[in-house]
Amino acid sequence: MEGVDHLAFERNKAQFDVDEMKIVWAGSREDFELSDRISRLVASDPVFRKDDRAALGRKELFKNTLRKAAHAWKRVIELRLSGEFSALEPEAYKLRAFVDQPAFTDLHWGMFVPAIQGQGTDEQQQKWLPLAYRMQIIGCYAQTELGHGSNVQGLETTATFDPKTDEFVIHSPTLTSSKWWPGGLGKVSTHAVVYARLIIDGQDYGVHGFIVQLRSLDDHLPLPGITIGDIGMKFGNAAYNTMDNGVLTFDHVRIPRNQMLMRVSQVTREGKYVHSNVPRQLVYGTMVYVRQKIVADASVALSRAVCIATRYSAVRRQFGSHNGGLETQVIDYKTQQSRLFPLLASAYAFRFVGEWLLWLYTDVTERLKAKDFSTLPEAHACTAGLKSLTTTATADGIEECRKLCGGHGYLCSSGLPELFAVYVPACTYEGDNIVLLLQVARHLVKTVSQLSTGNKPVGTTAYMARLEQLLQYHSDVKKAEDWLKPNVVLEAFEARAARMCVACAQNLSKFSNPEEGFQELAADLVEAAVAHCQLIVVSNVYALSLLHKHLGDFISTGCIDPKQGSLANEQLRNLYSQVRPNAVALVDAYNYTDHYLGSILGRYDGNVYPKLYEEAWKDPLNDSIVPDGFKEYIQPLLKQQLRNARL
Amino acid sequence: MEGVDHLAFERNKAQFDVDEMKIVWAGSREDFELSDRISRLVASDPVFRKDDRAALGRKELFKNTLRKAAHAWKRVIELRLSGEFSALEPEAYKLRAFVDQPAFTDLHWGMFVPAIQGQGTDEQQQKWLPLAYRMQIIGCYAQTELGHGSNVQGLETTATFDPKTDEFVIHSPTLTSSKWWPGGLGKVSTHAVVYARLIIDGQDYGVHGFIVQLRSLDDHLPLPGITIGDIGMKFGNAAYNTMDNGVLTFDHVRIPRNQMLMRVSQVTREGKYVHSNVPRQLVYGTMVYVRQKIVADASVALSRAVCIATRYSAVRRQFGSHNGGLETQVIDYKTQQSRLFPLLASAYAFRFVGEWLLWLYTDVTERLKAKDFSTLPEAHACTAGLKSLTTTATADGIEECRKLCGGHGYLCSSGLPELFAVYVPACTYEGDNIVLLLQVARHLVKTVSQLSTGNKPVGTTAYMARLEQLLQYHSDVKKAEDWLKPNVVLEAFEARAARMCVACAQNLSKFSNPEEGFQELAADLVEAAVAHCQLIVVSNVYALSLLHKHLGDFISTGCIDPKQGSLANEQLRNLYSQVRPNAVALVDAYNYTDHYLGSILGRYDGNVYPKLYEEAWKDPLNDSIVPDGFKEYIQPLLKQQLRNARL
Repeated sequence: MEGVDHLAFERNKAQFDVDEMKIVWAGSREDFELSDRISRLVASDPVFRKDDRAALGRKELFKNTLRKAAHAWKRVIELRLSGEFSALEPEAYKLRAFVDQPAFTDLHWGMFVPAIQGQGTDEQQQKWLPLAYRMQIIGCYAQTELGHGSNVQGLETTATFDPKTDEFVIHSPTLTSSKWWPGGLGKVSTHAVVYARLIIDGQDYGVHGFIVQLRSLDDHLPLPGITIGDIGMKFGNAAYNTMDNGVLTFDHVRIPRNQMLMRVSQVTREGKYVHSNVPRQLVYGTMVYVRQKIVADASVALSRAVCIATRYSAVRRQFGSHNGGLETQVIDYKTQQSRLFPLLASAYAFRFVGEWLLWLYTDVTERLKAKDFSTLPEAHACTAGLKSLTTTATADGIEECRKLCGGHGYLCSSGLPELFAVYVPACTYEGDNIVLLLQVARHLVKTVSQLSTGNKPVGTTAYMARLEQLLQYHSDVKKAEDWLKPNVVLEAFEARAARMCVACAQNLSKFSNPEEGFQELAADLVEAAVAHCQLIVVSNVYALSLLHKHLGDFISTGCIDPKQGSLANEQLRNLYSQVRPNAVALVDAYNYTDHYLGSILGRYDGNVYPKLYEEAWKDPLNDSIVPDGFKEYIQPLLKQQLRNARL
Repeated sequence: MEGVDHLAFERNKAQFDVDEMKIVWAGSREDFELSDRISRLVASDPVFRKDDRAALGRKELFKNTLRKAAHAWKRVIELRLSGEFSALEPEAYKLRAFVDQPAFTDLHWGMFVPAIQGQGTDEQQQKWLPLAYRMQIIGCYAQTELGHGSNVQGLETTATFDPKTDEFVIHSPTLTSSKWWPGGLGKVSTHAVVYARLIIDGQDYGVHGFIVQLRSLDDHLPLPGITIGDIGMKFGNAAYNTMDNGVLTFDHVRIPRNQMLMRVSQVTREGKYVHSNVPRQLVYGTMVYVRQKIVADASVALSRAVCIATRYSAVRRQFGSHNGGLETQVIDYKTQQSRLFPLLASAYAFRFVGEWLLWLYTDVTERLKAKDFSTLPEAHACTAGLKSLTTTATADGIEECRKLCGGHGYLCSSGLPELFAVYVPACTYEGDNIVLLLQVARHLVKTVSQLSTGNKPVGTTAYMARLEQLLQYHSDVKKAEDWLKPNVVLEAFEARAARMCVACAQNLSKFSNPEEGFQELAADLVEAAVAHCQLIVVSNVYALSLLHKHLGDFISTGCIDPKQGSLANEQLRNLYSQVRPNAVALVDAYNYTDHYLGSILGRYDGNVYPKLYEEAWKDPLNDSIVPDGFKEYIQPLLKQQLRNARL
């Protein structure tokens, strides 16, 4: 039945005001209203339809992306018709986000423009930004190479200064130096910020950024010396196959000297390499910003999956029918709750961590302006750790939500396969998650080792100042409810993290070569880093489910005893019962349109089965009753007369 | 360079005889030779090419599958030309396996034929099997419905006996009773074994199997009263989208009475429901067989992923270069080893568990013949648990291997996205993994509770007979090497599992309604079941990595103390160092062809980067330099003149 809300009985159970929670989730009333307006606008526009894309071949899929990107740009311009125009407004950003299909524009606005803003001189900004803002040029970010991702300092592309012509010669000296992965590069971008080793007079000055034109603005053909293509299919049906991730090689391509991004360091007409008085640490400010965005995106991706799984778990019934009555709602099974509710809690926790990181970014930026670099190492480690923690948990969480939907979660119409495939690269890009955790561990070990010299730990490592106390700590939990006190939970997490760090530091001190020790103990160091990062995010359900999952850490470090561990588990079960009546309302508070969710299982009205059935018939295979290939490949089998058949 | 073995230096390090290990992995010399011959035959046949399928649209992909299936059938017949012919020979099975593309034939041979063999009377077998063996009919297995998967007893399709015409009327009374998911149903099958509630004279006799013709053998059109279609796109690029999983509804379709599968129970001409003297427990024998196959398949899937990740980890270098020398091989990083080597160990462990299950199946079958049902409940619980354990570990393991390959693991040409997408349904089909663990838990709790009545636990639960001793147990490990003794490891796992079971049993006894207690404690029961299943699989590296992962269980149950836990971890690091030089040889022993692996990262010769580069150009997007859609959607952006632009 159209128009009927099959989940109304769930919504009536809610014990809080959903409309208020929507504001909390959005961040402010203004943010809520903007998201609400733009998401509806996108949902109602047939060009932005998503349900047909999974069955398309690569070419059709890509052309469809170009169409959506051009249409999105048109809508952005229309939205601002009455006023001045800027594609960097929140409206434009939200619109691209709700279109929900990776495209070259993500890299143009998200990487190319910010790279020029951050690393270009005022003059360079004045020249290039107006073109980019109006999309008279389209740019991408060409850093990663076939042979180098995480290790940016290992990039091989060269930019050799030629003093005779006042140019740089951009060149790919090896196969592995081919640029590989940049989104928007393969088929669309006219320009790129290319990262290459700066070579002057035979000397290597390390990796720098250069603005390079790739394609003609007339006929779109690659310029001489430039070879470009798409790197081929990636994970998932549509997912990132809407994006032209590219391969690019240079054969001695010349660009004017003033196309090196020179805000931090310059090459003079005479070929002298000089630093400006702009602090190099600015780069870290940008990194904090980018990672804050990634954490915010993690909460969005996880909340979408949780929304789908929660609603469908309320719709779906299986087993437990007595005397022909209704079967049990799947959401009422404790095994379902123990897997789903910690993810629901994580989505909210990550949302608030994202907000806090935004504050941290503002704080860091202001300090940088005042040339105060004191909090930078900690802020850098903290955002690295949170990026790793939230993206890993989100990728795993989306897949868990898919499994929580049973067999139907495997259908593209559930929305979950695409959500997973499009999300998982977040575990790798902007710093591989394990490499990042090792950076965090390095910072933690340093923090511990400097305590004796009176260095005060700052920010999220401040608890280390109480190290003596934390090493003495033993939880005084006596009954399950004690685990509800935020301080009790927090202290247990602090003590665990502190002890794991100290244990690592002690083990490291046994090595005469510290670097060797670091390599040898890397796996333990990663676990200590995880313990520290989890501590930053602690919140009730989330924390207790983690405590249960990592019980070994807590008990083996002597923070809590087995009895207290089982009390935590008991309390967790109580909390699940409290979450249960609010579950559907908690995911309603995300305020996602059915278009954005892109999931029949997660439909707002819960009308799952009729719509699943209806959707099936749209597959291209159902265009004809007898499939293409029947005459060639099926009929001959059926008509074949086999001799010698043994039965 | 073609022909050069870039991994030769790794292969030279091996400390064991790879050729001997190939025989061990294959099971016997005969099995090895058969696999080797058939896999090469498939690899050398251009029709079986796989590298182009990811970029195809649904229709082309499906037609390509029909072509491969027809060609595979032709090759099977040719292989047996000189002798008698049977498609059930190992050759035929292997050939389909190495073609490595899900197709309707999997269900025809794997489900339709066995259903008739297992549940059909002799007469029914004589009528239907010859047709099926020659593929003069093509069948599928129509059990799952839109609204019911795990709960088979909840199926809604009805088969009502009409004594007037001596027919059954097959009918879909509701939308949710539509058959949904059966592979091969959507576009190909001419027949199906349909599961439906048997209704005689208004009385419901539960779910039974019926042979139903679906399509005309002349024009392939659905017969009157039958509506069939494909259910649409699923997870992954090609993956299961090569399969026509279908939807099917019946509108009072009539079949003769003798098309009910009547080996176990019959309906007479008069409409009397009678049981034959064939034991119903036969069904469980089949279940043991199917699950044994699933465990064997798990080791194959996991070993493919591990093979790719191990070889590429040896090829790939990142960081650690000093003075311009080579960077460090990724496989030398401890974090990489601590993630990869336990999976390598798991693949081998699962292989041997699969062999053992084959023995168990033989044993169960012989006992069934002798009407000895005593070991059946334990065998049933054991295979359920191992199915759950190995498929979950394999799905997670494949994704972990993908991440271990860094960014390139996200490319379809790595082979890993497809391997994951095609594998994950194994966690859901033939019993949802969590539902299965609850069955195991039920069996364990029952076993514990019956100890006092003198019931001797059998099979994998035999250790429960030593319950008193296991409850007293405390590990006597004093140094890291102690963890190398198999008995030491085994006892720790036994004690942990026993204590977790006893704790569950004790908590259950606090509930006046046992079923309510079972629901409430479901999450703990699942963990106890996992502990028991892991015990069955224990082997060195595998066990110690599990012990580290589930340290909380071991310490909180008092089996080991924290010091012993950290000794286990130390020993694990030692073991990794021992595995390291043998890693590549250990995956070579799987003897997979490059065609079967379907991965550029996992190529035998390690020649990864040139081939990745070469492969990229095959994507359809690279057919033209300027992409389709440029004139409509890109050029207008670039040429647009925006007024009012704010910069």
